Amino acid sequence: MTKRAFNKIVVFGVGLIGGSFAMALRKARAVDTLVGFGRSELPLAQSLQLGVIDRIGKDVAAEIKDADLVLLATPVGQMSELMKRIAPHLGEKTLITDCGSTKSDVVREAYAQLGGKVAQFVPAHPIAGAEQSGASAAQPDLFQWKKVVLTPLPENSAESVARVRHAWELCGAMVKELTPAQHDEVFAAVSHLPHILSFALVHDLAQREQRDVLLSFAASGFRDFTRIAASSPEMWRDICLANRDALLKELQLYTDELAQIGAALEAGDAAKLEQIFRAAQQLRAGWKFRQ
Amino acid sequence: MTKRAFNKIVVFGVGLIGGSFAMALRKARAVDTLVGFGRSELPLAQSLQLGVIDRIGKDVAAEIKDADLVLLATPVGQMSELMKRIAPHLGEKTLITDCGSTKSDVVREAYAQLGGKVAQFVPAHPIAGAEQSGASAAQPDLFQWKKVVLTPLPENSAESVARVRHAWELCGAMVKELTPAQHDEVFAAVSHLPHILSFALVHDLAQREQRDVLLSFAASGFRDFTRIAASSPEMWRDICLANRDALLKELQLYTDELAQIGAALEAGDAAKLEQIFRAAQQLRAGWKFRQ
Repeated sequence: MTKRAFNKIVVFGVGLIGGSFAMALRKARAVDTLVGFGRSELPLAQSLQLGVIDRIGKDVAAEIKDADLVLLATPVGQMSELMKRIAPHLGEKTLITDCGSTKSDVVREAYAQLGGKVAQFVPAHPIAGAEQSGASAAQPDLFQWKKVVLTPLPENSAESVARVRHAWELCGAMVKELTPAQHDEVFAAVSHLPHILSFALVHDLAQREQRDVLLSFAASGFRDFTRIAASSPEMWRDICLANRDALLKELQLYTDELAQIGAALEAGDAAKLEQIFRAAQQLRAGWKFRQ
Repeated sequence: MTKRAFNKIVVFGVGLIGGSFAMALRKARAVDTLVGFGRSELPLAQSLQLGVIDRIGKDVAAEIKDADLVLLATPVGQMSELMKRIAPHLGEKTLITDCGSTKSDVVREAYAQLGGKVAQFVPAHPIAGAEQSGASAAQPDLFQWKKVVLTPLPENSAESVARVRHAWELCGAMVKELTPAQHDEVFAAVSHLPHILSFALVHDLAQREQRDVLLSFAASGFRDFTRIAASSPEMWRDICLANRDALLKELQLYTDELAQIGAALEAGDAAKLEQIFRAAQQLRAGWKFRQ
């Protein structure tokens, strides 16, 4: 029997992301034993029944000490407490990675909670945005051709980074590296801000008496623009707060941009409007989206 | 031989919209003779070759006087001049409809240019948004299950409105009615504002040195949010200017909404952010999009 890449992996939070990670590694025959922990019984029981995990973890200390890899797939708000809980029990060779959509805050908590063991933590952000959530939406191909951003720490050994990278690559992902600060700036601009803008438009309409009439005339442009406004309110509340500084900066730049367009519109400045729309149209039409 | 619904239809502007209208009525066997006028030779020649039109119009006066229906499918900016040109030649039974994305301005021009014949004009706006344009993108099913908004004038007879409605229904469209002012308010909110917001985000990124790095990490949320930023700059410049007042009002409401979110974010007000995101999420998730 060929030795598998990972002897034992422990997943905290067997929802869409954690469940899909487990399914992907199982499908790749890359792990012998998968253990799941979680706050709610139902997704754990479902995952066990589907064979996604081999058992529901009972004893954190016992399960962690001989694990090759621990995946933190809980909401970012729970990670600090979780790190504190697992820190004393980490084996010397146990690596940790996570799935947080923001990185500076998670890294800050890792330094605070993991202390001398922070070198074992290789932060990650899988870019597998989905409006769905929960264990029942998990699928082994969720990360296929998707980007996963690692934000390694100066303390990480090259070997640890390579091993965590390998785990994500086994899920089918394309792995990139950024610093935690770069990561948060990039995603404030291309993900967090658009989510706020989309939530804002729908909330703006939601407050109006006329909202049903308005929505009855909304077409495919509105549908696509607001698709991300159907995302989880709790998750996006947490992401926005976790990446507050970078996001406020982006929001200011965007507000300035809108003010510039509003002024051109008010002045009837056709040339200015066309110039702005054309620069946008050219960039967007030329952009080749690769997942 | 069964009598067809329309003896002769004249289309000004045989692009995506005008071409698709002609193809749809031809497919429905609803018209005997289709005549196309346009500024450029190529789309007219293509349309003739494809059998979409029966001939390229040469003499406006001669073609207009015995037409049942005239479709104005040019950019809104050209409609005033076009109305002036056709007004003296309109037969008593010739109806006119249009495809303008804004209605108050088109109606204002109609009163100015058609004068006593304004009763023959039944304004329309087919909601068949497409990033593509031009005759080569035309297709007979473009209006199938799409909404077409008529904004009838007090001068229109019920019979004229019914006949124009019938033409659009023969294209497969679902016809609704609003007043011109209602139309422009509704579309400022659900179409024109989102286009501005999407152009603004892409323009904001387009100006940055880092733009290629940023775009390389943009995912499906960004893709969908910015799809409409690939729309025609000229067309959207004209729509924005034509619907300036309603759009400035919407832009102000939206800017207030962003300021409210920015203040909550700055204050770290998690409850407020969640409440805003949740109201949006509930409305958007519950919205059933029907074309």
